[in-house]
Amino acid sequence: MKVTEEIRGFKAANISSDGIAELKEAARKARIWSILATSVAKSGHPAGALSSTDIYMTLLGAANVTPQTANNIDRDRIVVSHGHTSAGFYSALAAYGFFKPEDMYSNFRRTGSPFHGHVERVVPGVDWGTGNLGQGLAAGVGFALAARARGSKARTWVVMGDGEQVKGQVAEARRIAVKEELTNLVAVVDWNDIQISGHINEVMPCNLPELWKADGWQVIECDGHSFAKIYGAMKAAAEYNGCAVVLCRTVMGKGVSFMQNIPKYHGKPVSGDELAAALNELGGTMEMFEKAVEARRGAMPKGREEAEETVVLDLGTPRTYTKDDKKDNRGAFGTALAEVGALNYKKADRTPILVFDCDLAGSVKVDGFEKACPDNFVEIGIQEHSAATAAGAASTAGVVTVWADFGVFGADEVYNQQRLNDINHTNTKTVLTHVGLDVGEDGMTHQCIDYVSLFRNMFGWKVVVPADPNQTDRATRWMLAEVGNVCLAMGRGTLPVVLKEDGTPFYGDGYKFEYGAIDTLRDGKDAVIISMGHFAGRAIVARDLLAEQGVSAKVLHCATPLGMDDKELIKLIGDLPVVTCEDHNADTGIGSIVAMELARAGKAVKIVNMGVTHYGLSGPNEEVLAEMGLTPQDIADVVKGLLK
Amino acid sequence: MKVTEEIRGFKAANISSDGIAELKEAARKARIWSILATSVAKSGHPAGALSSTDIYMTLLGAANVTPQTANNIDRDRIVVSHGHTSAGFYSALAAYGFFKPEDMYSNFRRTGSPFHGHVERVVPGVDWGTGNLGQGLAAGVGFALAARARGSKARTWVVMGDGEQVKGQVAEARRIAVKEELTNLVAVVDWNDIQISGHINEVMPCNLPELWKADGWQVIECDGHSFAKIYGAMKAAAEYNGCAVVLCRTVMGKGVSFMQNIPKYHGKPVSGDELAAALNELGGTMEMFEKAVEARRGAMPKGREEAEETVVLDLGTPRTYTKDDKKDNRGAFGTALAEVGALNYKKADRTPILVFDCDLAGSVKVDGFEKACPDNFVEIGIQEHSAATAAGAASTAGVVTVWADFGVFGADEVYNQQRLNDINHTNTKTVLTHVGLDVGEDGMTHQCIDYVSLFRNMFGWKVVVPADPNQTDRATRWMLAEVGNVCLAMGRGTLPVVLKEDGTPFYGDGYKFEYGAIDTLRDGKDAVIISMGHFAGRAIVARDLLAEQGVSAKVLHCATPLGMDDKELIKLIGDLPVVTCEDHNADTGIGSIVAMELARAGKAVKIVNMGVTHYGLSGPNEEVLAEMGLTPQDIADVVKGLLK
Repeated sequence: MKVTEEIRGFKAANISSDGIAELKEAARKARIWSILATSVAKSGHPAGALSSTDIYMTLLGAANVTPQTANNIDRDRIVVSHGHTSAGFYSALAAYGFFKPEDMYSNFRRTGSPFHGHVERVVPGVDWGTGNLGQGLAAGVGFALAARARGSKARTWVVMGDGEQVKGQVAEARRIAVKEELTNLVAVVDWNDIQISGHINEVMPCNLPELWKADGWQVIECDGHSFAKIYGAMKAAAEYNGCAVVLCRTVMGKGVSFMQNIPKYHGKPVSGDELAAALNELGGTMEMFEKAVEARRGAMPKGREEAEETVVLDLGTPRTYTKDDKKDNRGAFGTALAEVGALNYKKADRTPILVFDCDLAGSVKVDGFEKACPDNFVEIGIQEHSAATAAGAASTAGVVTVWADFGVFGADEVYNQQRLNDINHTNTKTVLTHVGLDVGEDGMTHQCIDYVSLFRNMFGWKVVVPADPNQTDRATRWMLAEVGNVCLAMGRGTLPVVLKEDGTPFYGDGYKFEYGAIDTLRDGKDAVIISMGHFAGRAIVARDLLAEQGVSAKVLHCATPLGMDDKELIKLIGDLPVVTCEDHNADTGIGSIVAMELARAGKAVKIVNMGVTHYGLSGPNEEVLAEMGLTPQDIADVVKGLLK
Repeated sequence: MKVTEEIRGFKAANISSDGIAELKEAARKARIWSILATSVAKSGHPAGALSSTDIYMTLLGAANVTPQTANNIDRDRIVVSHGHTSAGFYSALAAYGFFKPEDMYSNFRRTGSPFHGHVERVVPGVDWGTGNLGQGLAAGVGFALAARARGSKARTWVVMGDGEQVKGQVAEARRIAVKEELTNLVAVVDWNDIQISGHINEVMPCNLPELWKADGWQVIECDGHSFAKIYGAMKAAAEYNGCAVVLCRTVMGKGVSFMQNIPKYHGKPVSGDELAAALNELGGTMEMFEKAVEARRGAMPKGREEAEETVVLDLGTPRTYTKDDKKDNRGAFGTALAEVGALNYKKADRTPILVFDCDLAGSVKVDGFEKACPDNFVEIGIQEHSAATAAGAASTAGVVTVWADFGVFGADEVYNQQRLNDINHTNTKTVLTHVGLDVGEDGMTHQCIDYVSLFRNMFGWKVVVPADPNQTDRATRWMLAEVGNVCLAMGRGTLPVVLKEDGTPFYGDGYKFEYGAIDTLRDGKDAVIISMGHFAGRAIVARDLLAEQGVSAKVLHCATPLGMDDKELIKLIGDLPVVTCEDHNADTGIGSIVAMELARAGKAVKIVNMGVTHYGLSGPNEEVLAEMGLTPQDIADVVKGLLK
């Protein structure tokens, strides 16, 4: 497209008349491709695609991203928040040469094709996979924070639907952007007034300009089908010294007379005579359609392969806590994080670490990092959904992101945001404190007894549940340089250091954290106790109680329940009866994983899974654990019961 | 309290000077109790409690709820959204005689006591357990909707903190209230400008009045420590013909000079000299404290036992679909729901059914109900968090609530809201459509492959995954009258009716849905195929393929993975090799439950768990399932492999 020579980077004050003519012609073709894509697939959202086409065409011409720079770290990023307009965005990308249009429209929503029903990162030019509405602006906030931390001049653009404007997460993201003074972020709303069930004002009314204004954004309205107006509004928003949103007044189904403003075309492609009529209006032909149907049976186009993120950090020297130290795991995490933070803060060629907090810095122990690296600390307030998404998106853009929160907020409350992070192959580190019953008196609403189960549903997340402050220190340093999503989970209470039989720290000097390892804390020949997290120490106490009664119990600890080496596990168990114990729902944590591995291995040994079996009470940890039947004595009793 | 004679129900225009004097004196005592409670427990949030005390004291005097009416269905309901101010609310309840103050402050946050760290429904006068911020207003919306559906004149009051105002779910709830014209709902904000990490404007700035105004609420500001002003503002809000919020300007730590406006007392009780000084300022004594410490070792007070909800509905006559019917499960659900809805709509002595939709009525098939029962249909728009909480709260207030949504929105996106519903013992029905890979071309962001795993983490939820339209019809009718939380899950596609060997419907005439039952669809002697949901039909096809090769496979179906009769399961399996199959993550669905039951029973049979092992592609169902290795032929092949 020639027009890019004048408008790329918003150089020109206005688009020339030649440029507008070129955009109009290209948009006409893009609309044909959108119709073809959805009609060939017999599935998709044609009317929303047509509505957003002129926005996409303008933005892709003027933003600093091209097919050649689409994988560059300093490109402008574009988030399409209303991912169901995929056909429209893909068509605009094709118009700018990101791929061949016929590859796209012939293979849209075809099984195995990169051109998924909702935008996914496997498509060149797509920076964030969406499809669950309301998350895009938070992703944009993440990209903008990452760019700023890296000193990059890149802008982030977030194009959104109007139906999703009522989703709470959008308002959260608006506030973060204003608080963080993100002048490198621009929001654009396709305001066609129609969502799947009908007109906005019938489904869920909202005063769009007032919502943005109330959160401190500059609102710029424009005709969303005038290239000159869209360009002018986007340029003004990009250059505004603050946060600005462009509200584009559009027509759903724009370009095909009988589809315009008709809600049923939101999620329904045209076919038969309607298809012919639509193509005819746009200057397309049924021949194109038939060719595309034919091509759909042919070779499959390939998607983008993104390079893996690289992380360069000095991880410092592990700290070893000894048996006289009174330390909680969260404190050990906070100390290690602050140390690594300080070692790398603002150093050239190091990957910046961004730490996110949701009004709990003191409790989750990121206050040390905040002091050491103030410019890399992001306070989000009580807005967990946006924190999760922003941390996820930023982690794909050249920074390491750490978000620490109570377990129920960092996992339970944002489960779906973490799932979308998984789908987007992010590299975020979520640190959960106050997991299990180990939350003190805060009671059942604060007991995160399900985090292993939650992340087990996804395919990329690693979960680490360290046994003591020493393992926490090493796992923290490991995690910071590990590519991929990692959840580090720990309770609230002070813990004894796990010791070898000689009284020296088990996870001290000479220990190196290895994902997947199963640690034999004590050997034994009568039974196996398999522990996770702070139950390691309790299992050793139980083992000592058993020893007094002449029972020899082996004690294993696995900090990585989802990555456990299954062959090693079966070998370590041998034919001994098994008791698993954990500060987690007894049916869904490491116990269930061990049981399943035993069943799959066809191994019939006795097994009891100890853990949380009902919501815990509100009281001191040890009392709450005792009420749950999880004292070391309880563990010893269960082991003895199995030996009868 | 004598003052209630004049102000109960907001009768008086103003509170008399005698009334104000009585309230002042009672509030002074309540503040002493809050200090005692947190200091005896050595845990809790004293400063927020003191901040909200005058609000609670005014509200409990004037709202239509007393210790005598605290379980009446037509009482005013009070939601304390910032549940960490529990000591303050409990103290105010004690002042109005809901229980003895010394029972509360001696046993606050004591293990086994009803006086949990965050407000819970086991305390008389608490209508909604909170502790995760930002959910209270949505619960209030639910109560207000239920009252209106029942024709009750009761009001709902929601008292909120200011830190939680930025949480997106609050904005969602505001919009629902305005759209539904809930004049029976009043919000009250304790605006002390301080949250746990510091002043609001440092943590996450927001323009409080503008946010409420932008969503269409009337904003009334007042001095939150003047009983006359609070009363006047609450009365004006209650009588306002629309939605109104009272923003109370307060001082955190009010009443104890050295605690006022000091963030550290947000979450830290006073002790030692500070405790003595605080008590002294309020007119209390250390003797009271010592007595409370002593009493904490004594008998435990009892909590409230709430009566179980009763549901009265005509469930109509089940429909039987035959082998010639082309029907999807969601259609069968929608038809049954509309039928039962129409049978009971606006009939005296029947429990009202409220149906919630999030902009997907046509897809999730609640449009039939909407037509039949328009006044009981609530359109929430794309605001799932608030939909989940509102449906939960309403279901504890004399109505049956059904919320239907795509699986990823009704389970994944709102996992924590459903967890809070579980903790609150609600009776809500969540209907998930489009679960599994059975979502058509929408792709991975829309594949809900974890719902069994999610609800398995909770202790009260029942999950039902019907095999075909007939079982769906019967499960729907059963669910509507079932007390407790039920999730009914189904895919998108048209399904064959599951037939007996004689060709008649298996789940047809004569079949009654029973929670926990395992159905033997086909008998066999060589292997067992255990299926869930629409895999029942696929398992039968696999069994027929095996029969052609001389293999006799038993086919079981269990629609209720979390309630499966484990003894019956083990009996049905016997010593046969097992293949489980499901449209769910293979590691976390019914397969993992069967494996765990086998391990726990010490039973060594061969087992393979078939299911979803990576995110699925975007394409037609059968193609996506085939790519995942889940065709009937794949199932047959795995069974054969086990027999080698």
